[in-house]
Amino acid sequence: MRAEIIAIGDELTSGRILNTTSNYAAHRLFQAGHEIHAMHTIGDTPELIGEILVRAIGRVDLILVTGGLGATDDDLTNEAVSQALNRPASLYPTILSQIREHSEHDTCESLEKLAWLPRGAELLSHDSRMAGHLLIHDQVPIFFLPGVPSQMHYMMDKHVLPWLAAHSPGLHSFQCLYKFFKASEIAINEDILKMQLDPEVEIGYYPVNNDIHLSLTVRDHDHQHSKKLFDHSCARIKRHFGQKIYGQDQDTLASVVGQLLAQNNLTLALAESCTGGLISSKITAVPGSSDYFLGGVTSYADSMKLGCLGVDNELLSKYGAVSSQIAGAMAENIKQMSGAGLTLSVTGIAGPGGGSAEKPVGTVHMGMSGPAGLSLHHFLFSGDRQNIQAITSQTALDLLRCHLLELMAE
Amino acid sequence: MRAEIIAIGDELTSGRILNTTSNYAAHRLFQAGHEIHAMHTIGDTPELIGEILVRAIGRVDLILVTGGLGATDDDLTNEAVSQALNRPASLYPTILSQIREHSEHDTCESLEKLAWLPRGAELLSHDSRMAGHLLIHDQVPIFFLPGVPSQMHYMMDKHVLPWLAAHSPGLHSFQCLYKFFKASEIAINEDILKMQLDPEVEIGYYPVNNDIHLSLTVRDHDHQHSKKLFDHSCARIKRHFGQKIYGQDQDTLASVVGQLLAQNNLTLALAESCTGGLISSKITAVPGSSDYFLGGVTSYADSMKLGCLGVDNELLSKYGAVSSQIAGAMAENIKQMSGAGLTLSVTGIAGPGGGSAEKPVGTVHMGMSGPAGLSLHHFLFSGDRQNIQAITSQTALDLLRCHLLELMAE
Repeated sequence: MRAEIIAIGDELTSGRILNTTSNYAAHRLFQAGHEIHAMHTIGDTPELIGEILVRAIGRVDLILVTGGLGATDDDLTNEAVSQALNRPASLYPTILSQIREHSEHDTCESLEKLAWLPRGAELLSHDSRMAGHLLIHDQVPIFFLPGVPSQMHYMMDKHVLPWLAAHSPGLHSFQCLYKFFKASEIAINEDILKMQLDPEVEIGYYPVNNDIHLSLTVRDHDHQHSKKLFDHSCARIKRHFGQKIYGQDQDTLASVVGQLLAQNNLTLALAESCTGGLISSKITAVPGSSDYFLGGVTSYADSMKLGCLGVDNELLSKYGAVSSQIAGAMAENIKQMSGAGLTLSVTGIAGPGGGSAEKPVGTVHMGMSGPAGLSLHHFLFSGDRQNIQAITSQTALDLLRCHLLELMAE
Repeated sequence: MRAEIIAIGDELTSGRILNTTSNYAAHRLFQAGHEIHAMHTIGDTPELIGEILVRAIGRVDLILVTGGLGATDDDLTNEAVSQALNRPASLYPTILSQIREHSEHDTCESLEKLAWLPRGAELLSHDSRMAGHLLIHDQVPIFFLPGVPSQMHYMMDKHVLPWLAAHSPGLHSFQCLYKFFKASEIAINEDILKMQLDPEVEIGYYPVNNDIHLSLTVRDHDHQHSKKLFDHSCARIKRHFGQKIYGQDQDTLASVVGQLLAQNNLTLALAESCTGGLISSKITAVPGSSDYFLGGVTSYADSMKLGCLGVDNELLSKYGAVSSQIAGAMAENIKQMSGAGLTLSVTGIAGPGGGSAEKPVGTVHMGMSGPAGLSLHHFLFSGDRQNIQAITSQTALDLLRCHLLELMAE
């Protein structure tokens, strides 16, 4: 099906809030084999909501509307729909009784607005306390979902996708995403062109933070042929780029490092300074990370480097906190303290203050201590504080990844 | 000016990449007093790019297009514009010579595409190596900017906004955003309605993660009157909600905690477990945090709680790592080790594994040790791993905020 996605809310058009629900909807619909014709974001303006909706009904097979379903007085989606599609608001007793059951007496009245929907709307769920309904107008299904991301995700996965699967069977796309860290988009593009993949294979290139993501898509016209072509093309890409690809699809550098640590039967501990716990928080965002991650010390102040990490005072005075000597000492000391098989340390200047001619903002030293001994690494990154912290954490994770791959190759 | 924003890229309509550039553009244009009529996201499809562009030219005063300006073969914006607006591609020698000067011989050829723009395009910058041009068509300025967020932000701030300021002086909106943590949107809405603010004051409510953001906007029709009304309404809101408002505009819980630490002349150290460094990374994301943040220990494994934090083995065996006793010991030990004036500890079960009937996933204990002694706090959060880590870190920061405010009130 060809779909349009309409996100509603002044908070979106004024840029106060980043619209993430349209992205989620697009991603899930695309995976399910649908094609997104366009995505629109508009304010809480009834006339415009009606106009965009009516135009979409005329040209696509499926419409998803998010936002403006709440109880505050700036939530106007239902009113706009009632007017534009000539479907007066009707009272839904199921919703009303739920509101009365679940809310305090004094907020009950202001919530009653939620029980009025455009005539013909079908509730997506009778037991959920989230807004969400379906309206079929001129044979086009229009789903209305909450604007709050967690609720929207839930309603999408639990109600919209199953409904679509039941009403449009057999649709599918094969897609794989290959992720590169610090690679050249142009160089990858040239390699791909030289490979002369089948024209049915769609390739896309996407710089994301400091990654390049390469997508490979085969639309499923003839199942056996499409699947074979997809598998064959994926295999060629993986063979060609090898370890330059750090992961696929949902992989992150942190999850890949976790898998490699588990495969190497190694535990990890960290000593962070300028990244302030960012690397550690990325690693622990991965479920199951307690299997291989012991923890770390964030020695942001010099006093913590001395007191908690046991770095030598003379070494610190002689070379300064941002030096390969201190990075080395941090990596070795955290190894001894934690008993981890592999450790990594980071010390640097994230800015905006703290730089000097000799050690400008962006100077970062890392140390890695493991089965192969100690290695030291020196970088000069650019950008603002956030960029420097981000690329430092990614570089550290990639350093661990490459080292773990080397250990496995030995 | 009334503006439309058009973002182009298959990576956006397939949901692989979250569109953040439109949000940035909307935010900056709104601040500069412009009104966003609509934002559209479409794929790399020349016909559709042309169609959306032509329709926008007919109804708004300003258009911003992002994406599809690169050198890979899926970048089609310039071709689409040439065709739709009947402006054949012309060679821009300035760009060509820059490419030849700055790139390796073997990639030079594939980059030459960048030197061809629709006829009449004016380069936004002659010395920048980023794409970006302005086309004035039927008197409507159309800005074409890169899709890569960092480049887009740069071109927006450096070129688009100054151009607009020069061409539409005197426009402005007064706006302030008030941020609440863990508050009820409905309750805030009711309070605001009771306050009976002037109808010229526009109020919006936005749940963002676990925050509620309340926006107050006054459009500047009559400068003196508007400014006075804005200041008066802001003062009423601040007086009414008091410390329920944790911050304004760009404030984060972490930046507010930082300011309060500085005002109290206190330093902070952390002992994290289930949040794995997340609280620490939020605090160190704030420039200047080295003034008050010493660092911390992420004792993810029990061995780190014993070895690095010096938690008593018997206590750990008796109560388990996730207990108020261990939270208390962690907070007190990190205080002793770091010498910080205030410390906070977190130990809990972020899931998906590790829960039990007695201590389900979402169980979190915190300890805070400072001038007022030790306090212990117990929570049961819900959601997936990411949600639990997020709300735990926010709750910890809010606990610090409230405690620091109490210290100041004494």
